[in-house]
Amino acid sequence: MAQAHRGADELQLAVQLVAMTVVWAGGYPDIIPTAGEIWPRPQEVKQGHTSMVVDPLDFRFVVTDYDCDILQQALERYLKIIANYPSNVQPQGDGKGGNLKSCLNSVQVSLVSACEEYPHQGMEESYEIKVNSSGIRSNAIIASQSIWGILRGLESFSQLLVPVGSVYTLASTTIKDYPRFCYRGLMIDTARHYIPVRRIEEMLDLLAMNKFNVLHWHLVDDQSFPYQSEKFPDLSDKGSYSKAHIYTAKDIADVIEYARVRGIRIIPEFDTPEHMKSWGPGQPNLLTPCYADDKPDGTYGPIDPTNEQNYEFLKSFLTEVDSRFPDNHIHLGGDAALAGSKCWRSNPNITKFMEKLGISEKYNKLRALYTKRLFDIVWELPNTDGFLVWEEVFDRGIDLPDNVIVQVWILHYLDVWKRSLQQITSVGFQTIMSSCWYLSDTIGHNWRRYYACDPRDFEGTPEQKELVLGGEACVWGEHVDATNIIPTAWPNACAVGERLWSSTEHTSDPEDAAPRLEEHRCRLLRRGYGVSPIFSSYCDADTSF
Amino acid sequence: MAQAHRGADELQLAVQLVAMTVVWAGGYPDIIPTAGEIWPRPQEVKQGHTSMVVDPLDFRFVVTDYDCDILQQALERYLKIIANYPSNVQPQGDGKGGNLKSCLNSVQVSLVSACEEYPHQGMEESYEIKVNSSGIRSNAIIASQSIWGILRGLESFSQLLVPVGSVYTLASTTIKDYPRFCYRGLMIDTARHYIPVRRIEEMLDLLAMNKFNVLHWHLVDDQSFPYQSEKFPDLSDKGSYSKAHIYTAKDIADVIEYARVRGIRIIPEFDTPEHMKSWGPGQPNLLTPCYADDKPDGTYGPIDPTNEQNYEFLKSFLTEVDSRFPDNHIHLGGDAALAGSKCWRSNPNITKFMEKLGISEKYNKLRALYTKRLFDIVWELPNTDGFLVWEEVFDRGIDLPDNVIVQVWILHYLDVWKRSLQQITSVGFQTIMSSCWYLSDTIGHNWRRYYACDPRDFEGTPEQKELVLGGEACVWGEHVDATNIIPTAWPNACAVGERLWSSTEHTSDPEDAAPRLEEHRCRLLRRGYGVSPIFSSYCDADTSF
Repeated sequence: MAQAHRGADELQLAVQLVAMTVVWAGGYPDIIPTAGEIWPRPQEVKQGHTSMVVDPLDFRFVVTDYDCDILQQALERYLKIIANYPSNVQPQGDGKGGNLKSCLNSVQVSLVSACEEYPHQGMEESYEIKVNSSGIRSNAIIASQSIWGILRGLESFSQLLVPVGSVYTLASTTIKDYPRFCYRGLMIDTARHYIPVRRIEEMLDLLAMNKFNVLHWHLVDDQSFPYQSEKFPDLSDKGSYSKAHIYTAKDIADVIEYARVRGIRIIPEFDTPEHMKSWGPGQPNLLTPCYADDKPDGTYGPIDPTNEQNYEFLKSFLTEVDSRFPDNHIHLGGDAALAGSKCWRSNPNITKFMEKLGISEKYNKLRALYTKRLFDIVWELPNTDGFLVWEEVFDRGIDLPDNVIVQVWILHYLDVWKRSLQQITSVGFQTIMSSCWYLSDTIGHNWRRYYACDPRDFEGTPEQKELVLGGEACVWGEHVDATNIIPTAWPNACAVGERLWSSTEHTSDPEDAAPRLEEHRCRLLRRGYGVSPIFSSYCDADTSF
Repeated sequence: MAQAHRGADELQLAVQLVAMTVVWAGGYPDIIPTAGEIWPRPQEVKQGHTSMVVDPLDFRFVVTDYDCDILQQALERYLKIIANYPSNVQPQGDGKGGNLKSCLNSVQVSLVSACEEYPHQGMEESYEIKVNSSGIRSNAIIASQSIWGILRGLESFSQLLVPVGSVYTLASTTIKDYPRFCYRGLMIDTARHYIPVRRIEEMLDLLAMNKFNVLHWHLVDDQSFPYQSEKFPDLSDKGSYSKAHIYTAKDIADVIEYARVRGIRIIPEFDTPEHMKSWGPGQPNLLTPCYADDKPDGTYGPIDPTNEQNYEFLKSFLTEVDSRFPDNHIHLGGDAALAGSKCWRSNPNITKFMEKLGISEKYNKLRALYTKRLFDIVWELPNTDGFLVWEEVFDRGIDLPDNVIVQVWILHYLDVWKRSLQQITSVGFQTIMSSCWYLSDTIGHNWRRYYACDPRDFEGTPEQKELVLGGEACVWGEHVDATNIIPTAWPNACAVGERLWSSTEHTSDPEDAAPRLEEHRCRLLRRGYGVSPIFSSYCDADTSF
């Protein structure tokens, strides 16, 4: 059903409009963007020789099969993106305005299974698009087995539209697309600096537009505890930077919902046993008092693993976390801080405890003992059936359960990460790679470095490669806050996004990627996101920033 | 004249308000800001033990001597800054709320000479501030010989105010201040990316708030020609990225005026004989056609120095520039592009021309010949009596007139710049240093590196040191546009600003500077500027970004 056709006269007019407004711009930008290419690059794209006109003010989606709130909200978002037509577009590339055959004013959206409520590990994300023009008739369909595939397909469809004059042109296109990796994440750190919810939502918009499916939320750390617990409100009341620097239950719920309808999982991280300084003021006796000259020196170290009440606290705290975050994965941290063992070593109660257990001086054993207790707690959480840890937890030889995902982050230079992936997968654990993708210390032109990295580029069997679920870009917060998180993370994260979604043969050449990335950046600017430039160039929307 | 005093009751109330609202915030930020310190640090500051209350809604400036439009506009700006009180301030440091003695509701502004119309090389910028409290009486004065000193003093005064609760506290303070260097610049590049006027104005705001006095505007380059000439409109019509990426005569005038009233000079750069690709389309026969296989290959090199008409063009073009930009300095560029000589070498007309002059193969001589002609043109411009060039012009042994300022930019590592400064000043030329201060390739935490650099830190006589007029931070545009210029340039440029204004003994220790820089960043955020963080921390205003 559902396609109205413009008459021949109307089409003629539209074609003339397109032709009239193709004004070639000047200057010598170092990169010329493509027109109507999709980022990240789909697995299969075929384009025909004909193209059609889409009028932003006369366009609709027609739902032909299953429907749900996620779909309705997505259609509304993309209608808005399409209707928000830029006013001064002077196409740089070939606007694909040639051989215009027809107008397209609706697209069928065919979701052939009922919606799932939440995105999840291993969700189906494949989709197909067919846009076809013959004579004055044209038709288009976006189809998927899954609401998540429909979301990815809508994003791709919106990227096919090339603004020319006051309309879009759209080439006849067939797409079959699916992700290479099932885990495509980005981490934000809201402990070193607080990131307002509206900025996190902007990050989620951009994640969706680059087909990421996980936001790993490094919520708390030594510096501050902005996460507001219902059971333990003192944690944020005493551990946040200020009352204005807190994520309330409503804030958390808003972020989760915002991500849900975009097909993005929120995986919260509560890092223990170290990096916990900010937990201390709100939870007495949680942390180990450090000693100097045989007395507590007023500073605190890692969690005190000798105090049974601390496990009760963790159980209660994590049970609330488990009920608040719908994703069935949680990140348990576990990265090392050098000062940790030193504080444990200084504390006579810890020393006595270790003697009693016959593990004197073996601080990794103490850590293992703590971690085992933590895993037992997490194991019993009703809504959690898998978790992530930083790679040190693996390196220390702690017994890990099967359902762990080890996040590799150490040394993106010297290829140390390849050895880590090799070792972790050789004993059968799942893993994700972040070593190459620490985005917080660089600016735009480093996208090529990020783009050059493949999470499966290490020595291993096909089975080992399969254990690499994907990767995660990390945006640490020491130098990043609301003032600069968008231009710091983007377009660098775009490069990671394509690496995680697209095939290796489609992502091997940064020279091929650059003009497509330039188009994508201009597109994101047009949508209102302040994404940094990749090299000397311009976009029609860069004057509005 | 001119000071109203609150009664004892009112003061009592204000003091109570301050005491009530000093809520100490939590968390463990890595930097704790100072309270009421001035950035860049004044030459002399003495603070007493008493302090007073300033009510943002009951405060005014009283002009006691000379007045002018620049002064009136400045008072309006600073009243607005003071009245724009943040809503949720929780002081981190000592709010200097102790020992409150009185309320201050006006400040005398004493300008003892008539205003100059435009800021200029060597302008007077010193000022004094006295804020005094005794009993319930308090008084304050900002005084200077010059409107430019008053502007610097107003900025300093505004920084003394520490928001606490719903008022400010202000310590009794005496300041005598003047700049160490007379040239304190920042360069922006609007050729690689277009920067909208409103963003340039935001940069000017920040320059004024860090006591810079020059914006060096690298207007055009190979990539684009956004500068609109009245006599030669084809230059931007054919050489800009698009019609939306042009600075019109009105845009230019707006920027100059915006800078003028803030005591900032605008020095435009028109870089020749290389980096001129974008000039080509709008001015036929200006550039040298490059040859391959004995024919023009369709590409163009540097300006064609054999064509007499080109000197006529330059004279006409620069005469317009001279009339449009009131500053009596212009930047003539002159930096090298390797491809330049290669194109000249390929062109048979150039070769013939050089043979005739007996300078075959001596491309530096050809360059010198061109440069001499250019200097002769500039020399005759009615409003220009000095100019800047990049250091290659000096390196090539081109005859330079006395009124040149050589800008040193090469190699900020290996201390090559120190040798350059030594050589340039040893033959008596004035210079400014930029080598250490290329801000466009790094992020926030590098401020320490910028801060460590002193433009007079080279081997030379006191006379040589005097020839170093100052320095200039450079924000090149390859990776910088409106989306990221503010957080890329700031707070890094703050570090440069203090280095250029303050004494060496006051700027030798980054550990001392860090808490003051943190306060300054928070202040700039409060004023609405998205300045990047320097390390893990928070500001009361960082949630509004």
